Amino acid sequence: MGHQQGSDAVTASSSAPLPVCFISDSTAITAETLGNALLVHFPDAGFLRRTFSFVDTVDTAREVVRQISERMPQAVVFMTVRNVDAAAVLTAGLSNVVDLLSEHLNQLERILGMPRTQGDHAHPHGMGDTDRYHARMRAVEFAVEHDDGQSLRMLELADLIILAPSRCGKTPTALYLALQHGLRVANYPLTEDDYPGQQLPGPVRPYSERCFGLTSSAHRLSQVRQQRRPGSPYASLEQCRRELLQAETLYGLHQIPFLNSQNKSVEEIAAVILQRMGLRKSPVRIH
Amino acid sequence: MGHQQGSDAVTASSSAPLPVCFISDSTAITAETLGNALLVHFPDAGFLRRTFSFVDTVDTAREVVRQISERMPQAVVFMTVRNVDAAAVLTAGLSNVVDLLSEHLNQLERILGMPRTQGDHAHPHGMGDTDRYHARMRAVEFAVEHDDGQSLRMLELADLIILAPSRCGKTPTALYLALQHGLRVANYPLTEDDYPGQQLPGPVRPYSERCFGLTSSAHRLSQVRQQRRPGSPYASLEQCRRELLQAETLYGLHQIPFLNSQNKSVEEIAAVILQRMGLRKSPVRIH
Repeated sequence: MGHQQGSDAVTASSSAPLPVCFISDSTAITAETLGNALLVHFPDAGFLRRTFSFVDTVDTAREVVRQISERMPQAVVFMTVRNVDAAAVLTAGLSNVVDLLSEHLNQLERILGMPRTQGDHAHPHGMGDTDRYHARMRAVEFAVEHDDGQSLRMLELADLIILAPSRCGKTPTALYLALQHGLRVANYPLTEDDYPGQQLPGPVRPYSERCFGLTSSAHRLSQVRQQRRPGSPYASLEQCRRELLQAETLYGLHQIPFLNSQNKSVEEIAAVILQRMGLRKSPVRIH
Repeated sequence: MGHQQGSDAVTASSSAPLPVCFISDSTAITAETLGNALLVHFPDAGFLRRTFSFVDTVDTAREVVRQISERMPQAVVFMTVRNVDAAAVLTAGLSNVVDLLSEHLNQLERILGMPRTQGDHAHPHGMGDTDRYHARMRAVEFAVEHDDGQSLRMLELADLIILAPSRCGKTPTALYLALQHGLRVANYPLTEDDYPGQQLPGPVRPYSERCFGLTSSAHRLSQVRQQRRPGSPYASLEQCRRELLQAETLYGLHQIPFLNSQNKSVEEIAAVILQRMGLRKSPVRIH
């Protein structure tokens, strides 16, 4: 028995997750986003991730080299560090460095016919243009205030109103679009009583051209609702079927574009909405 | 006069913003994130952005090539398209293509000693591991429910509790950490009446080791509050000064790490909190 455990351990160890480090001079959002988008191409390898943010001086770079060399010298390192000296310390001190910026910047210099700036003041995920930044934060407030039809105050300012029966993904989608794209997004629930005569619910009726609907499959919706209120009529398959059919009928009647959110992530739902509604503003979180 | 307008137009045209296209086979999050992180290095150029998401077949790639060639043939193109044939159509048909994946994937194949997968099922911003995805969505619900001390239900499950006086950035930070990192984040307001005797407010007192504080400058806080309630005592410089002093004293007494959020974006605040609180889980939105 002890022997078996031992051989299991060897197997486990030989397939131990490979350390991956993200090293950034700022938030590490770029390094993590691209690094992870690359790693999904190697689904058979297991990875153990570690992030080092705000590595923007030679001293912090040296400290990071020391830590990685001691604890995980074979780590794959994704790097977005603009300070040339700090980047040189990392490249010289670590083995498997994937520099996510340099080559692309060289190519852009050729395409644009101008040199990159040498200052390191421009952080892609800093405040940037403060007016835009604050507009984005106001969009987040708007989305929180207008979650699930809670408030109708200044609904006329909404860039988008997401409609759906309960538990189809309205809330995270609205918050995501507000946070990442600075859009003022309200979300409004469709309940059985709320739209007699196949009219849109009163408060959103004047804004039908800004509405987008979500739907799901009855089976999936019932599962999700069972987690919330087990055994309730609200969670029954029959009720879910009826609500989804009503919602889809309503979308059809009022020419409201809609999407089945069942197997889609909030990022995918948001991307579809941006595309279908022509809502993609120039990104608000950068210059 | 007409002449002057004409010469203005020439100037405007010679410094017209350069079209930039992001072409992705999925949400375009990776392409936009890295593309924009690269473009900030060219602050003197103006860019006009356009995103093409879900370009995952030869046919959609051909349509995109047609549109770009007609309307903006000189566009800089950032591409994250994994389908080899679709990518080839784009590279052959467009001028200034920056391929954000290929070279890095080649390098990773060498480092990892294994080939990339040829399937294109693994989307970095799809649902991925559905258990993890749903845990992330529950974290978003938790953050909405526990916004601004509105609910104390299951507060014991919070990974993090953000404390701050009104208008220091609690809400967007909490939502960001929930959405992007799957953390259950509550946020709780510090008001003058709420912490007599320099105790932490009752509901969060048992969880002081999970608390993180935000502060600001009195001047900035007063500005922000003036926008909300002009001329109110709440917005007065004196009141803001007093509240911030009380908050910082409280953080100090209870060893609660804190950050001045005044000139920081929500992404930067979140990155600092993750680092200081040791909260960075393996990213939850990817495999």
